[in-house]
Amino acid sequence: MVELAEGSTTAALFTQNSFAAPPVVLAQKHIISAQTRALLVNAGNANAATGAQGLNNAMACCSKVSELIGCECEQVLPFSTGVIGEPFDMPAMLAGIQNAVAQVGQADWLGAARAIMTTDTVPKAISRTVEIDGEVITVTGIAKGSGMISPNMATMLAFVVTDAPLATEVLQSLVETGNARSFNCITVDSDTSTNDALVLSATGRANIAPLLELADPRTHNFELTLNEVLSHLATSIIRDAEGATKFISIEVVNGLVKPDCVAVAYAVANSPLVKTALFAGDPNWGRLVMAIGKAKTIAMDVSLININVNSVALLTGGQLSPSYSEELGQRVFSQDEIEIQIDLAQGDESHRVWTSDLSHDYVSINADYRS
Amino acid sequence: MVELAEGSTTAALFTQNSFAAPPVVLAQKHIISAQTRALLVNAGNANAATGAQGLNNAMACCSKVSELIGCECEQVLPFSTGVIGEPFDMPAMLAGIQNAVAQVGQADWLGAARAIMTTDTVPKAISRTVEIDGEVITVTGIAKGSGMISPNMATMLAFVVTDAPLATEVLQSLVETGNARSFNCITVDSDTSTNDALVLSATGRANIAPLLELADPRTHNFELTLNEVLSHLATSIIRDAEGATKFISIEVVNGLVKPDCVAVAYAVANSPLVKTALFAGDPNWGRLVMAIGKAKTIAMDVSLININVNSVALLTGGQLSPSYSEELGQRVFSQDEIEIQIDLAQGDESHRVWTSDLSHDYVSINADYRS
Repeated sequence: MVELAEGSTTAALFTQNSFAAPPVVLAQKHIISAQTRALLVNAGNANAATGAQGLNNAMACCSKVSELIGCECEQVLPFSTGVIGEPFDMPAMLAGIQNAVAQVGQADWLGAARAIMTTDTVPKAISRTVEIDGEVITVTGIAKGSGMISPNMATMLAFVVTDAPLATEVLQSLVETGNARSFNCITVDSDTSTNDALVLSATGRANIAPLLELADPRTHNFELTLNEVLSHLATSIIRDAEGATKFISIEVVNGLVKPDCVAVAYAVANSPLVKTALFAGDPNWGRLVMAIGKAKTIAMDVSLININVNSVALLTGGQLSPSYSEELGQRVFSQDEIEIQIDLAQGDESHRVWTSDLSHDYVSINADYRS
Repeated sequence: MVELAEGSTTAALFTQNSFAAPPVVLAQKHIISAQTRALLVNAGNANAATGAQGLNNAMACCSKVSELIGCECEQVLPFSTGVIGEPFDMPAMLAGIQNAVAQVGQADWLGAARAIMTTDTVPKAISRTVEIDGEVITVTGIAKGSGMISPNMATMLAFVVTDAPLATEVLQSLVETGNARSFNCITVDSDTSTNDALVLSATGRANIAPLLELADPRTHNFELTLNEVLSHLATSIIRDAEGATKFISIEVVNGLVKPDCVAVAYAVANSPLVKTALFAGDPNWGRLVMAIGKAKTIAMDVSLININVNSVALLTGGQLSPSYSEELGQRVFSQDEIEIQIDLAQGDESHRVWTSDLSHDYVSINADYRS
């Protein structure tokens, strides 16, 4: 549980999954009706596809928190992650809330990051500072996520808090822009969770004049640090992706239109055949070509395309580069970090996606998850 | 190699992949410029992403065939399947063609089906007959495909031949309609090949009046048999899908608009999390709900959705069915053939997709394919 100081502002983004879970539905309602004072998060049970009972249970959890810390029920935002479709064990939940509230005040971010893990193997947390008006401003974030990752507006769960004073509108704009370059650019398995949420809260405890405008250079300064935190959390999810052995960055550049760049980046990032070749360290670049070709694009001309993998030229003008050799391919594809740059050579739009490979362990983790 | 009798009509559908391989490009050109007399197929090398040299090589293969059987180069359609991005070994190809032409006339369909296999574990062939005007008409087809299967207009490679006399326009219409209900409704891994092709040839050797109109009841009679052949070949590909242990049918019914049915069916069929749960025989129905929810639909209302798995009611009105139990779920999800029926309860549109599960063997096959 995170308790926010009185006067804090909060902005958030939620999953676009049509089966959005009851806690998501409730959090969306609460965040617009009152000033948020507490974030309540549980792992192990997503309270998703649980219908009216699920909504009642999420509400009962918020009520319990509000009683214990002395605020309105609407000032509590609930978040859940874990197995979909099972009802909460309410006595256990209420006892857990009692316990969590008793521990509030310890500011144990790493403990919190650990508490929200499901198939994650490592906690994901980061803290960065930035100097504004001579004051040291802190931005701290935690996240969880490893599978069912293909965010559409947000990712599994991420909570970022700062002591900077920020107007809610500024906060909402920053979280949307930052999310577009971080959590909305990652995919493990193309599967979008029912419970995704990204929350940014600002307590305003730092002794500086409030950041009320996006155009304020101080806001821009803050934004750079915020984006560093968001990118770190998003890449942490990919580095800890289910069964992942590699970190892959797919950069599509010089597209005529942005949607073509996005379509090509995701066609490659989500291709099981590209991902198994990457797992094997096999320079089977024909699969890259296949994946680019299957993308539903508007303006792409394959005879113009150049592909570089790390520093190696692979395709030039739609054909195998004269300097490419199987040996060079083996060398780059066997690396742990692979940057695939796809140059559409048509314009100046671009899109970058971070992803992981597809391994035996991904199958093991997901074939055995509930058992 | 298939040699077609003089006067045969031929219709075909090809991949929509932007990186369509040189043989696809050439076959598309040849089929509209001359009456097809021969289909030349090789497995092991897809002659894809091979540029101008790849096109020259495909052309040289067609020329060789035309010399040997005495026809124009444009009367030969080339097809290739296998590894993408490697040049043909032309001396081996030309020797192979010489050899293939020498064997023409043996009508060894099973041998041909075996010869075009790549990661397939079994040959795919079928022959059916239908009586028209008192004559026995034969429809025989072969296909190959196991991975990189998410056809967009056609599948890996499928060749169907009949002795019925059919006008080219009727043939083209029949192949498009039949394909829409067979090869275009299957997915193994969401990856669309650069070399997909479906070809239907009619030699006209049967002693009946030509089928010149779609409205002719005799044409309809023929179509039923043709569709049986196409469905058999398409389902054979799914039954032999890379690493597959189960055959899954996903039937989306009662949608308000067709695109919603298609989006939901493919969101479920291509979800790695649904596919690994199916592999495990785990009734983790929350993943079904997640996959339906992530589909980009226009009119879907999740509170109306009913889901049946084989005969078991799973979701009713968007919520877990009162009659459902984990034990019932275990029983149906452990079966080898699973039909998932998703009732959108909004209209009368529908779409059905056949798919497979995602197993350890899928990863093994595709991590080791080239080595």
